Amino acid sequence: MKISARNQFEGIVKEINEGAVNAEVLIELADGLVIASIITMSAVKNIGLEVGKPATAIIKASNVMVGA
Amino acid sequence: MKISARNQFEGIVKEINEGAVNAEVLIELADGLVIASIITMSAVKNIGLEVGKPATAIIKASNVMVGA
Amino acid sequence: MKISARNQFEGIVKEINEGAVNAEVLIELADGLVIASIITMSAVKNIGLEVGKPATAIIKASNVMVGA
Amino acid sequence: MKISARNQFEGIVKEINEGAVNAEVLIELADGLVIASIITMSAVKNIGLEVGKPATAIIKASNVMVGA
Amino acid sequence: MKISARNQFEGIVKEINEGAVNAEVLIELADGLVIASIITMSAVKNIGLEVGKPATAIIKASNVMVGA
Amino acid sequence: MKISARNQFEGIVKEINEGAVNAEVLIELADGLVIASIITMSAVKNIGLEVGKPATAIIKASNVMVGA
Repeated sequence: MKISARNQFEGIVKEINEGAVNAEVLIELADGLVIASIITMSAVKNIGLEVGKPATAIIKASNVMVGA
Repeated sequence: MKISARNQFEGIVKEINEGAVNAEVLIELADGLVIASIITMSAVKNIGLEVGKPATAIIKASNVMVGA
Repeated sequence: MKISARNQFEGIVKEINEGAVNAEVLIELADGLVIASIITMSAVKNIGLEVGKPATAIIKASNVMVGA
Repeated sequence: MKISARNQFEGIVKEINEGAVNAEVLIELADGLVIASIITMSAVKNIGLEVGKPATAIIKASNVMVGA
Repeated sequence: MKISARNQFEGIVKEINEGAVNAEVLIELADGLVIASIITMSAVKNIGLEVGKPATAIIKASNVMVGA
Repeated sequence: MKISARNQFEGIVKEINEGAVNAEVLIELADGLVIASIITMSAVKNIGLEVGKPATAIIKASNVMVGA
């Protein structure tokens, strides 16, 4: 399935910090850039996320702000 | 001013595609990664965005989904 | 690729209204429920969206508000 | 009050999973479709959400991505 | 209908700038504070927005970032 | 750094409710208006948020819905 989100960056799961409802997931891209994501704990289980496994950070362009 | 958004990536404005209300802005990071953003035309003017100028892509962690 | 977004609803593209930067896409689910999405024009082309073709509406749980 | 969000789907609260700050709310629509939402615990109390009670899932069109 | 969004601010529509798909709506609160919103053109028509009429700005807490 | 988000409101941190992953932050503006934000616990620490200290609520226009 191709996704409409313009930003899709492949990397490796570096860290998963679990909470009651949400989890904080850090994904490290090839160049060392780290992207932080907050998803639900059930999503972590549904998609079988584990530290060291490949994962893609997916970001809708309308959710990206710009600083200058 | 420090911003709470966990994801802040510095780069250069590569492209600005203007619409009536919104504009599509492409920011190229040092490693060649390109991040697409949709912001309002007034925001483009307010912060003085121009192709070739430095810019930072700012993304709240709760707006990052994960694929695996 | 499995996506962390909790809400993924399969349907058929009913309508695509094009703008300069964004497009409004209506997806009709099996039961007649219609979901409206705003994505970029480039995304419409990238994923080859066409009226009458299958498409999935993808919504992060943190982007769903509740009324009661 | 009429809301600008294009997607408003009426259903019944099926489940509420409570966390420290957020709660995960599942809303079942007439056709069995279940929509997951993450809202704050205070919002759950403010609007008097309870399992078995009617509730509406409200989603801004710009927060709906498309897969194809 | 009570809405789960924690931030609901009543004001008057000050300006509506129309685009092909989206419109930019400025809402002025009692104290002169102006909130900018981007909603679809169809939403503007659906809820009968007009300059000078009352309107409420509705913002989910998870969409508010903090600077310090 | 100037930020593209159209809505930037200065105030004072009134309350911080901590969770495992997220925190709920209330910012009181000069006129008594209170804006609720959900940010990650790490963001609270990164930007040194404390009750009584100045803080700015930052909201992208596309994340503001309208009621009428």
